[in-house]
Amino acid sequence: MQQDHRFPGVTEITPTANIRVNAHGGRAKCLQRLVRLGLPVPRTEAIDFRSVSALKSGQTLDFDAIFGRMDPDLPLVSVRPSTAQPDWGGPSTVLNIGMTDRVHAMLRGSIGAAGADAVYARFIQSYALHVARLDPGIFTGRASVADLLRAYEDAMDEPFPQDPGTQLRAVLGAMALAWDGATARLLREARGAPADAGLGLVVQQMVLGVGDRERGESGSGVIQFVSSSEGQPQVTGRYLNQSQGREALLDKVPALYLTRDPRGPSLEDRAPEIFAALQDHGALCRARLREEMQIEFTVSHGRLNILDAVRVKRSARAAVRIAVALATDGIIPEPEAVLRVTPRSLLDVLHRQIDPEARVTPVTTAIAASPGAATGRLVFTAAAAQAAAARDEPCILVRRETTPGDVLGMHASVGILTKRGGVTSHAAVIARGLGLPCVVGASDLVMDRKAGTLTAPSGVVLREGEEVTLDGSTGQLIAGAVPLLQPSMDPALGTLLAWADERRDIGIRANCDTPAEARLADRFEAEGIGLCRTEHMFFEDDRLTLMREMIFAEREQDRRAALDRLLPVQRGDFREIFQIMAGRPVCIRLLDPPLHEFLPTDRAGMAQLATALDLPLSDVQDRIQSLSEVNPMLGMRGVRLGLSVPEIYEMQARAIFEAALATEPRVTPEIMIPLVSARREVELVRARIAAVADAVQAETGETLEYRLGVMVETPRAALRAHEIGEHASFLSFGTNDLTQMTYGLSRDDAGRFMSTYVSQGVFEEDPFLQLDTTGVGELLEIGAERGRTASPDMVLSLCGEHGGDPESIAFCRKLGFSYVSCSPFRVPVARMAAAHLAIRESSDLGASPLLR
Amino acid sequence: MQQDHRFPGVTEITPTANIRVNAHGGRAKCLQRLVRLGLPVPRTEAIDFRSVSALKSGQTLDFDAIFGRMDPDLPLVSVRPSTAQPDWGGPSTVLNIGMTDRVHAMLRGSIGAAGADAVYARFIQSYALHVARLDPGIFTGRASVADLLRAYEDAMDEPFPQDPGTQLRAVLGAMALAWDGATARLLREARGAPADAGLGLVVQQMVLGVGDRERGESGSGVIQFVSSSEGQPQVTGRYLNQSQGREALLDKVPALYLTRDPRGPSLEDRAPEIFAALQDHGALCRARLREEMQIEFTVSHGRLNILDAVRVKRSARAAVRIAVALATDGIIPEPEAVLRVTPRSLLDVLHRQIDPEARVTPVTTAIAASPGAATGRLVFTAAAAQAAAARDEPCILVRRETTPGDVLGMHASVGILTKRGGVTSHAAVIARGLGLPCVVGASDLVMDRKAGTLTAPSGVVLREGEEVTLDGSTGQLIAGAVPLLQPSMDPALGTLLAWADERRDIGIRANCDTPAEARLADRFEAEGIGLCRTEHMFFEDDRLTLMREMIFAEREQDRRAALDRLLPVQRGDFREIFQIMAGRPVCIRLLDPPLHEFLPTDRAGMAQLATALDLPLSDVQDRIQSLSEVNPMLGMRGVRLGLSVPEIYEMQARAIFEAALATEPRVTPEIMIPLVSARREVELVRARIAAVADAVQAETGETLEYRLGVMVETPRAALRAHEIGEHASFLSFGTNDLTQMTYGLSRDDAGRFMSTYVSQGVFEEDPFLQLDTTGVGELLEIGAERGRTASPDMVLSLCGEHGGDPESIAFCRKLGFSYVSCSPFRVPVARMAAAHLAIRESSDLGASPLLR
Repeated sequence: MQQDHRFPGVTEITPTANIRVNAHGGRAKCLQRLVRLGLPVPRTEAIDFRSVSALKSGQTLDFDAIFGRMDPDLPLVSVRPSTAQPDWGGPSTVLNIGMTDRVHAMLRGSIGAAGADAVYARFIQSYALHVARLDPGIFTGRASVADLLRAYEDAMDEPFPQDPGTQLRAVLGAMALAWDGATARLLREARGAPADAGLGLVVQQMVLGVGDRERGESGSGVIQFVSSSEGQPQVTGRYLNQSQGREALLDKVPALYLTRDPRGPSLEDRAPEIFAALQDHGALCRARLREEMQIEFTVSHGRLNILDAVRVKRSARAAVRIAVALATDGIIPEPEAVLRVTPRSLLDVLHRQIDPEARVTPVTTAIAASPGAATGRLVFTAAAAQAAAARDEPCILVRRETTPGDVLGMHASVGILTKRGGVTSHAAVIARGLGLPCVVGASDLVMDRKAGTLTAPSGVVLREGEEVTLDGSTGQLIAGAVPLLQPSMDPALGTLLAWADERRDIGIRANCDTPAEARLADRFEAEGIGLCRTEHMFFEDDRLTLMREMIFAEREQDRRAALDRLLPVQRGDFREIFQIMAGRPVCIRLLDPPLHEFLPTDRAGMAQLATALDLPLSDVQDRIQSLSEVNPMLGMRGVRLGLSVPEIYEMQARAIFEAALATEPRVTPEIMIPLVSARREVELVRARIAAVADAVQAETGETLEYRLGVMVETPRAALRAHEIGEHASFLSFGTNDLTQMTYGLSRDDAGRFMSTYVSQGVFEEDPFLQLDTTGVGELLEIGAERGRTASPDMVLSLCGEHGGDPESIAFCRKLGFSYVSCSPFRVPVARMAAAHLAIRESSDLGASPLLR
Repeated sequence: MQQDHRFPGVTEITPTANIRVNAHGGRAKCLQRLVRLGLPVPRTEAIDFRSVSALKSGQTLDFDAIFGRMDPDLPLVSVRPSTAQPDWGGPSTVLNIGMTDRVHAMLRGSIGAAGADAVYARFIQSYALHVARLDPGIFTGRASVADLLRAYEDAMDEPFPQDPGTQLRAVLGAMALAWDGATARLLREARGAPADAGLGLVVQQMVLGVGDRERGESGSGVIQFVSSSEGQPQVTGRYLNQSQGREALLDKVPALYLTRDPRGPSLEDRAPEIFAALQDHGALCRARLREEMQIEFTVSHGRLNILDAVRVKRSARAAVRIAVALATDGIIPEPEAVLRVTPRSLLDVLHRQIDPEARVTPVTTAIAASPGAATGRLVFTAAAAQAAAARDEPCILVRRETTPGDVLGMHASVGILTKRGGVTSHAAVIARGLGLPCVVGASDLVMDRKAGTLTAPSGVVLREGEEVTLDGSTGQLIAGAVPLLQPSMDPALGTLLAWADERRDIGIRANCDTPAEARLADRFEAEGIGLCRTEHMFFEDDRLTLMREMIFAEREQDRRAALDRLLPVQRGDFREIFQIMAGRPVCIRLLDPPLHEFLPTDRAGMAQLATALDLPLSDVQDRIQSLSEVNPMLGMRGVRLGLSVPEIYEMQARAIFEAALATEPRVTPEIMIPLVSARREVELVRARIAAVADAVQAETGETLEYRLGVMVETPRAALRAHEIGEHASFLSFGTNDLTQMTYGLSRDDAGRFMSTYVSQGVFEEDPFLQLDTTGVGELLEIGAERGRTASPDMVLSLCGEHGGDPESIAFCRKLGFSYVSCSPFRVPVARMAAAHLAIRESSDLGASPLLR
């Protein structure tokens, strides 16, 4: 009889009982599996979600009968929560229910006065706290059971309940109510629980870890067989003689080591047969439950009981090693190992992290924009960052917001903090590309550059040159240095990614602007470069001067002269990138930003430029003024610039072609036109580039192959993709700008309200972080479909920040895109995410509930 | 025999000949009509497009035979161009072809030596100029026929041709070549001619206006029966005794008046029977050709000949009067009268114009952004404009670009000139709303505010306070005052618009921000207000201070306090507008621009604000700095502002509701939410506004009706219209912003390249002027269709600048929109344009070729 018909809703956990995760919770199901494995689990009954919920509306269960089925010599039970997902929280475990004056007296006989007192005292306090909701302070200074009972009665105006059934009803009712409380609901909903998530409970026969020392070993502990932080095999856990529950884990208790240890006594010494049994149980669990489990056990008068087992908590790095080991040992298939690791968690493996053991108090917490942690000295200007780098001093660059002029300073820093901007602000995008920690939108900090101070709302003042730690994974700025865990490209990660690559069916490229980034892309095994932005190449000092000369040239021939001097520099950059990528495709975007981004913004810079160009300062100021724009995002940039000053794209095309011809193995460069909104823009640029290609072929006598494509980043380009595609061999959706234009929302200005918008549910997600599949996504669908009508061979891809986001990759894969391109550090994430999609689709693995 | 088979391509113009506009040109067709009416037209032969074109490739016609069919006593012909459209240009008329020494001798006998010499001399010079392409200078100082013949022979090294057929072949060949020349082609293509537009020619028996004075009156002239400038009935024209062609129109000749005139002799005096015949012919033409014609006539020895007739040239105002008179006289039906007036031409009727007779030399010509002309003194700041207005001095405001802070200064000016921006820049939009002339994008002017000068590239310096004239119809800035024609809302225009309204089937509303503009809308009979922007209401001095207090308020209660003081002001504005519109619908857009637009931008303004708010200057500067945005167009504005500072919309809703309840007749206000991109934005604002409505109803005990709708101006709002529409009773497409976002193009920054883009055909038209029906238009289609799925009663409209553009109105009508809304001055244009569409669709009038 699996379910006692007299006690509907209460099911004894036996090997054949009908226990379901969605009705009784994961803990109940896991306990059933332990029972099936023949482990010594005390009698346990599961109460399903519906019955627990019904308790709130006054329905009841036959509590006396539950006690009636327990050991008459020890009529005590524990109650633990059992939810569908283990991380949805739930009320605290309550032990020793059924403890009354009568049982107290009985236990004094069986385990001695000290143990019986301890058990009763613990229960009174636990009941007072979790059920009667009394202030724990009322027990202060009271030690004896009698004192505790009196304190309880004083506070409640009634004696401590002496009926086990009443106690159990009260405990279960309190748990059901707590599950409905606002705090619990918010907590679990934040972890993805649905609004109607149920709470199940397991009622288990108590096994006392407290006993008569004469009758053998008694105590309790937890044990696991891998390291939670690193994932390698290692017996870890604690055991405490004469203890219950998780007491062994408390910091102050003198717990025993588990394995033999020179530093002190161990369970292995003290009870070798119990330790050996635990090892056997652990191996059995790993093989049969196909997972590394942490086991909670109690020893009672020398007899081992397994009370519970949960999936071992693990760092991202440990998760990788555990999954690979399970597959290598033949316990799970490789695709399942891939599925066991959340793609996003790889970011933590690839970046330095603040040691989880370290205690930190942040000065401020803002938007986490690029993961990883770093310690360095505060600097407030890009120049100071470069100077610090020259002195080999790590520094954290703090800016109101960054501009392309700050990029070299950002390269020179170990972390970036900005007062403004959101997760796709300039600072955030560049930092992710560089793999640097970045925190943005720290608007509550007051920066006084003159005084060289950064003041937090709390009044804490950080001074320029002072050491701080920035955590781009959590958004924290911390005063001083903090212990950091170093990243590693673990062999296990390499194995896992290789398995992932075998399964995935969409390409992953990297967005790389510099040889340094290309090297990262190579290290993370990107299949090519999907977006090489050329503007950052012009910000090094000597190049910037040439660029400015070009901008200030009045006549075409002067402009050409300046560009002629930039040509070898660009060619060199491209050649280096081509060589690093060794034949893999490289897609280069022609110059995109408005020219004014290359000009100085402060008076000193303008004066310097005036000297360099031998022009009156006022001329320089006027010219800079005349180039400024109201909405630079929507101004004279991209192909508009390319058509207005055609010499720039001609120079770039020549640099690309000459670099390609000078590289072995040969590369077929891909040239991408930015900010297109009309077919004719593509026609005109295409003609000019073809002319350059013809000239280079004539000069070198070599045959040149290249592809020309369009970056689809205006809604109009998506809508007119059938026309625009006539002249393009590929269309790459630049979803950063496309999102900005579809929403009418600048990512640089969105930071001021985005977090409010997301928290209020106005936007489901920040559309710069996760592709808006219904709005922007429809434009991708339209653009893809129409682009294919122009040519069935049209190569489609996505090259925005979304390229590293698993949900966005799923969307692109559904549309049949050839590849996505993302920051180099995101490449492993994207490879994993793509593999997950393919594996889930090709098998039923995705549907089978994995034990967590 | 209509076409002589021996002379293919040459057709004698008889009543039954097969003469077609598309084969022989409009002049040939018109001459046939005159022949059909029995007017005394000399024998005329038409040469079709194909034959003229074939002349270039050496094909020939039997020129001798043409002469063989002419009067043997006067074997001379004229040749005139005949094109499909009269304004496509064409080569100059050549008279007296066939004039040789032999004919010269013959004419000496028939009309006397003086006349014969004059005719031969004129032909030699005309032939030398148009056929031999000689410099007219070679004839300087030569008077006798013999001298002229010698000069010709000297220049050409061959004698003047003495064979009429050779002459005619040469004339026709030269005309065919001229038609193919680059100048002629560019000219006609600018007027809308297709690339393959044909040239026909008419060869007409000469009638000499030069004759033997003894044998009666000889001379030539032109006559018309209405005024070209005003359109009222009035005999106009000139007649010159002993003249040919259009000599009577030359300035220096002593031409006669036509009607009896106290100032001198007239044709009516001199030849009353001829004058009477001309009057009869004119009346016949008007009635039968259904048009006011200008007639070219020659009198030869007392006999009247009609050589040609063309549609009377007319000003826009005259066109209206002529069309209404033709319909009133029963000559054409009313709908045809409506079709006879180009909608856009009404702009000229409604604005002051520079007198077409005045000779002007512009200092610069830039982008014509708002039509009309005005003279005033140059001022460089909004404050100076207000000061000038206070002194009752008209002024022209010159700014680099305008911001909302300049609006009061713009109100105080008679014209606006900006260095930057395009036709939909802030300056242009506001100026059109105000009906003020505006020229933008005058980037070649150097403005030195300190020196108070404006310098043109030519070196011309205009000083502050100097009088200038601005022509917003042509984009010209002119030094000094120029004679202007005053506008009028003519009764004829009223009649025509009433006929238009009877036919049109799409509503026309006006965009009005102020009571003054609402009065204009009323005057132009708009059906309501389609867009009332509320931001301009906050720029008057006392309101601006309150607005700034609100922005600087740290706490909600301070913000509310400032808004409480703004409430009565807003309520007053709305009430006045509701009263002017007298029950017609008024659609009010909630506050849209970013708050920083209300803050001062210069140090002095900030200091003043600091004093007013009793804050340190640095606080004010910091706050302004923190509100500044990289791309204000895409920033914290519209509904984003409304959700972040909800008190603003609440105040506005209250002001609207209270004003509506205080107005008779009752108005049902329409409230529009700007810059929506997600459904939830609408839900949240709707709930807040409903709460305000409930409160106002509870306070007043009155029932309040209102409609809530969404301004669709982001691509996402169009794509998600089915969701957004769930909470809206109307969707109004704000095509200014929608165009900006669809193209990724700021209208404020587009001016720098838009003209190049349009002239190079990158964009077919400036999408801010004419709706981009393929890109932006598709979003309108999608939005309309999806909006209707949310509710079949969804009211759809367009309220951008495009609302006044006929092509855009056609597009909206096709989508079944309820109305379009445009600047008040554009309302008559829109009413006419909408009527044209309905009339063309409902009848075959649109297809019948109108005589031009």
